[in-house]
Amino acid sequence: MNNQSFSSTKGCLYLVPTPLDFGCEDLTPIQEVMPLGSLQIASQLEYWITENAKSTRAFLNRVHPICPLKSALQELNIQVLPRAVHKQGDHTSAKTDQKATLELLKPALAGHNVGLCSEAGMPAIADPGSSFVRLAHDLGIEVKPLVGPISLMLALAASGLNGQNFAFIGYLPVPAADRLKRMEGLQNLALQTGQTQIVIETPYRNEALMQAFIEKLKPNIRLSISSGLTLSSMKTTSQLISQWRQLPKLKASELPTVFCFGPG
Amino acid sequence: MNNQSFSSTKGCLYLVPTPLDFGCEDLTPIQEVMPLGSLQIASQLEYWITENAKSTRAFLNRVHPICPLKSALQELNIQVLPRAVHKQGDHTSAKTDQKATLELLKPALAGHNVGLCSEAGMPAIADPGSSFVRLAHDLGIEVKPLVGPISLMLALAASGLNGQNFAFIGYLPVPAADRLKRMEGLQNLALQTGQTQIVIETPYRNEALMQAFIEKLKPNIRLSISSGLTLSSMKTTSQLISQWRQLPKLKASELPTVFCFGPG
Repeated sequence: MNNQSFSSTKGCLYLVPTPLDFGCEDLTPIQEVMPLGSLQIASQLEYWITENAKSTRAFLNRVHPICPLKSALQELNIQVLPRAVHKQGDHTSAKTDQKATLELLKPALAGHNVGLCSEAGMPAIADPGSSFVRLAHDLGIEVKPLVGPISLMLALAASGLNGQNFAFIGYLPVPAADRLKRMEGLQNLALQTGQTQIVIETPYRNEALMQAFIEKLKPNIRLSISSGLTLSSMKTTSQLISQWRQLPKLKASELPTVFCFGPG
Repeated sequence: MNNQSFSSTKGCLYLVPTPLDFGCEDLTPIQEVMPLGSLQIASQLEYWITENAKSTRAFLNRVHPICPLKSALQELNIQVLPRAVHKQGDHTSAKTDQKATLELLKPALAGHNVGLCSEAGMPAIADPGSSFVRLAHDLGIEVKPLVGPISLMLALAASGLNGQNFAFIGYLPVPAADRLKRMEGLQNLALQTGQTQIVIETPYRNEALMQAFIEKLKPNIRLSISSGLTLSSMKTTSQLISQWRQLPKLKASELPTVFCFGPG
């Protein structure tokens, strides 16, 4: 912490995306998937709010050879999101601990720029972080999103499905009956409105979700499955359910995967 | 065209995002908003399908000083999307001219990598292009999306609204009565499900849409307006409708703008 901690001007909250190869063996050179502008800003930040301190340190270790960090890693102030937010998400005020949120934003009030990041991809999209962004606005702290990889949109573009009306739903319920009911509801919505539906799953359940889609969706629905986005093994398979059913049985990837479906 | 035009291996269809400063005076250095990996791949492509040939040439002129183009600009094969697709979008098969689409993908069948791009941002998201992606899948052409700026997601992350359940709706109807009805329908959906609603507008109507939201949405709805994303003048204002109503009357930006709203 420097001696100008309390300035009359507030700092910014930067939303810093991180590569999508978190937890993968196949690491992409960071400058291939992140713009220099984003790496440059990240390298200058001394205050961080993050889903996971270890993954943020690993990220900054990859930034350093491209854009040298302003302060050594061990001197950075890296604060972890409160556990409740981390586990349940923070998109409803009921789940937000306002006091803990305010505490983490104090450096911004004192004039420091603060970085918000998650383990992979864009913070606050399919990831926690939104309560910090809301509170930053309420405190008059400027919020600046930086460019980086966003798996949901890479998958949507690669699907060939409607990108002019789409919804991200998150996870489907795990119990089979609840899952089927939700799947049918989303299929009806997609057929009535043309809206592409985007869902994700924890990797070890990808196979079960893929089989449920192939078995239960209507033959004229297009299902697109994108795995390993931005990795060298990146693959999108997009075809009608009737075609999925004719194929020799594919096995779903155990890499992070995005599922999109809608009228074919 | 080189002498190996007909190879036994098909080319890839690369989805190439472009900077968001299309038509703006304030051009961002391209390497600040696009990863080198995306620029490198774009620089090697000799076949392009695009919304607008002039803007694609301008894009490639900005790529060249960072990653030299494989072939001179005037030697590139740049094909423009059929006018019907351009005007109406191509996310329903009724609107797609299959023959014209197939013609533009022939270089990929002949073994060349082909780039698909729009005027700004990610092709096939809030932009035409999806019919080419669908047909590429049907022809067994591999589809690879590249990382770049996507205004909808920058705006969503910066809004502080729910990023774990959201929908992009496109444009609201222009006639006041139809617009109000649609707005109220989306507001009900947002309140019932927590789903953030994302809409866009043609810049000269930003002011009218902003005033309609402030006047007609419920006081406890959060409205976030992001303009000039990735530009130096980038600005996100996110607050409850009750707060928007108390403010001295703001004027909407005439830059490209994304509107997000949902439970506050």
